[in-house]
Amino acid sequence: MSTVTRKVIRVSGAARREATDELAVEEPLEIRIDTRPFVVTMRTPGHDEELAAGFLFTEGLIASRKDIAEIHENRRNRSGNSLDVFLSAGSSIDLDRLRRRSFVSSSCGVCGKESIRALQKRFKPIRSRVRVASELLLDLPNRLRAAQSTFERTGGLHAAGIFTPDGKLIVAREDIGRHNAVDKVVGFGVLNSLLPFSEHVLVVSGRASFEIIQKAIAAKIPIICAVSAPSSLAVEFARANGQTLVGFIREKRMNVYAGKQRLR
Amino acid sequence: MSTVTRKVIRVSGAARREATDELAVEEPLEIRIDTRPFVVTMRTPGHDEELAAGFLFTEGLIASRKDIAEIHENRRNRSGNSLDVFLSAGSSIDLDRLRRRSFVSSSCGVCGKESIRALQKRFKPIRSRVRVASELLLDLPNRLRAAQSTFERTGGLHAAGIFTPDGKLIVAREDIGRHNAVDKVVGFGVLNSLLPFSEHVLVVSGRASFEIIQKAIAAKIPIICAVSAPSSLAVEFARANGQTLVGFIREKRMNVYAGKQRLR
Repeated sequence: MSTVTRKVIRVSGAARREATDELAVEEPLEIRIDTRPFVVTMRTPGHDEELAAGFLFTEGLIASRKDIAEIHENRRNRSGNSLDVFLSAGSSIDLDRLRRRSFVSSSCGVCGKESIRALQKRFKPIRSRVRVASELLLDLPNRLRAAQSTFERTGGLHAAGIFTPDGKLIVAREDIGRHNAVDKVVGFGVLNSLLPFSEHVLVVSGRASFEIIQKAIAAKIPIICAVSAPSSLAVEFARANGQTLVGFIREKRMNVYAGKQRLR
Repeated sequence: MSTVTRKVIRVSGAARREATDELAVEEPLEIRIDTRPFVVTMRTPGHDEELAAGFLFTEGLIASRKDIAEIHENRRNRSGNSLDVFLSAGSSIDLDRLRRRSFVSSSCGVCGKESIRALQKRFKPIRSRVRVASELLLDLPNRLRAAQSTFERTGGLHAAGIFTPDGKLIVAREDIGRHNAVDKVVGFGVLNSLLPFSEHVLVVSGRASFEIIQKAIAAKIPIICAVSAPSSLAVEFARANGQTLVGFIREKRMNVYAGKQRLR
């Protein structure tokens, strides 16, 4: 359930009346690895297995579906907010790797000009030769919205979608966090062994930050379309890694920030 | 510098032309405590001292200005992306506390119905008897926008502002991350010893998630106005803690989700 109804006071000029309003659900999700608590993230419930698989994949902690033996609700905590991931025999997760990401060691080089270079080492540049029609890209945000139910009602949920080069929707997911919506569509790819998405287009509602581009490159996605503006670091990173980045898609207009060679 | 100019291809129907576009700057900031690397966050440069002070305060790691002896650029790293915080003699930060927040221990109770109760224990409910006029709240997003320069140009920056009960702006800050913009205005309060903001209104562009409400309560802010929708957990948390939460402010309309007794 991704929305709930709550009573509100609706103020309109000097008038006030009781009304009901639909809200996007935000709840914590605990992800456990082999029964050990690993991370807690705020998210909109639904497709939690995809969220967990996508998160572990885009953070570089698992490489494919094969690394996961089982993934399901924590059977000792029926709140719906705790998920168990069991790794395959032989797979292991470097817990310290995620910690290092948030709690930087002095050698990480994340500050200053070194940052892009340091981050780039984790990824190989995108080499996909796929090309798509500009008119198609202009229409993808409409196709993503058509696949959503909640978003338009509450204005409170972000969406992400994966499309084929001819505009067929593979999967669309919503979440209160844009990065979670991206993790869910990538996680769908992981769990269904559809990765890499190297001929595909990722469409996100709203803005494109560095984090979104980084998650896209983990799934080898060559083209990213954001309905709103990208950040400076998103553009810099997309250019450095050979990705196509399109933003500010409005009706028949859009800006191409990187990788124009993939547009027909 | 919160924006940069980049060359883009502007597509409009079948036409394409080169143009320049203004982008919100996103760069990593490393915060060091007593010269030890502590955390890295993506942010829009500017008011970094406020961001760091606000972050440490809203996370409950420092209690006031007095806990900070010095705060300035890391003089051995002139990238502009590394900041040194030196604690006062006798002050210390429980590094594990922040780690526990991301890497939950099994006793944290964050999952399920326990979550709200567990989180509440960290904060006392708001008791402020301040009241404000509805018409004033309806106008605050306009006043916040008037104080911004960049936002309207790029559509890529969030804003947060602190107002007095009669609508005077105390401080407005922008950032690519909404939570950072809130940390900056709270950090302004910390560094200038203006806290608690117990008679004040926090206005945020965009949505209000749990994280925003949690930061507001750390600064004892009784009234929060979000231009867009709040999440379910934001509403639940505001109600549990006696805060007033207003959202979806559009021209002469708004929704009151919690604490209507503070509206005249």
